[in-house]
Amino acid sequence: MRTSRGGRPRDPSRDGVIRAAIMRLLADVGYGALTMDAVAAEAGVGKATIYRRWRTKQDLVADTITELNGTTVTPADTGSLETDLRALLHAIVDVINGPIGAATQALLSTVPHHPVLGEAFGDGPVGVWCRAFEQVFARAEARGELRPGLAGTVTAEALMAPLVQRWLITGHPVTRDYADEVLADVALPLLRATCGPTA
Amino acid sequence: MRTSRGGRPRDPSRDGVIRAAIMRLLADVGYGALTMDAVAAEAGVGKATIYRRWRTKQDLVADTITELNGTTVTPADTGSLETDLRALLHAIVDVINGPIGAATQALLSTVPHHPVLGEAFGDGPVGVWCRAFEQVFARAEARGELRPGLAGTVTAEALMAPLVQRWLITGHPVTRDYADEVLADVALPLLRATCGPTA
Repeated sequence: MRTSRGGRPRDPSRDGVIRAAIMRLLADVGYGALTMDAVAAEAGVGKATIYRRWRTKQDLVADTITELNGTTVTPADTGSLETDLRALLHAIVDVINGPIGAATQALLSTVPHHPVLGEAFGDGPVGVWCRAFEQVFARAEARGELRPGLAGTVTAEALMAPLVQRWLITGHPVTRDYADEVLADVALPLLRATCGPTA
Repeated sequence: MRTSRGGRPRDPSRDGVIRAAIMRLLADVGYGALTMDAVAAEAGVGKATIYRRWRTKQDLVADTITELNGTTVTPADTGSLETDLRALLHAIVDVINGPIGAATQALLSTVPHHPVLGEAFGDGPVGVWCRAFEQVFARAEARGELRPGLAGTVTAEALMAPLVQRWLITGHPVTRDYADEVLADVALPLLRATCGPTA
């Protein structure tokens, strides 16, 4: 087990508590108004505990972002492209409406001003979702439902883009019903037209 | 001509200078760090000039947002759906990469915390772009290139969503070449598959 500078063992569950507190505070007050004092109070730990592990607010937030981007979304294997995509779009809706979605929105305006945060942020949660889509595509290719080569294309980006657009800018609710519309009216027609076995 | 409380005529061109200064400062330092002093210095006007017209920073930013949302994008009438869409997507790329794009990104994390800003923001620049798409759709419908009824649908939202996704979250460059890819690989196949005269 890694130990802190003082030789005391770190408690990984406490790191999780502190990161969850960061996410709630980002959503509530934003990066600018977030303080180490508030993080300590929200997490219910002493300030010394936080400073032993993270020197600055920027370190702490960058580390939290890195941790989030390490989270994987494992798409359900339902046996067909349509039901796999539906399950994945629903999972994305849940992330958008949960603590990761709120914390991400709170960081968007800050990231361009802080190279350290920008580097940790990378593609943000969209990177995680892209990798989940790639698993769905690979299974559909193996079943002969899709021609190979979809991963990394503009077409692949387009499948979730309407959800992201609603979430980040227009402020309209991002619901599972909306995801079903995106699936039926955008994703499936587009895939059939450009990437289906007979396209 | 409307006059300020002091009876002195307002100079509308000076309002424009102040709003442009706000947009530069939003892009440079963000809403949190923006001050009325900095706005006055950036615009090259006295602080009293600003306070005569806007009581608080929030008023000034909300007013600037309202002004931006009143800007229209007039899509070129080129005689075909494909070339109209290309011209419009290029115009959107230019807005994203200009002062409105930078100021909008700087506001995204702030808007949810300030109802007054949220109300002024509405759909943000996406609302302006939707109205421009509707003009393009109406012309294509009149020429028989599209079936009627596309305006306001998820399909219509999907046409620009990949640009918005890149702009706001993944940080990859939003170029005219990328817009051409979105047109060729997403927008046109989707419209042909779902809204073409023979779809």
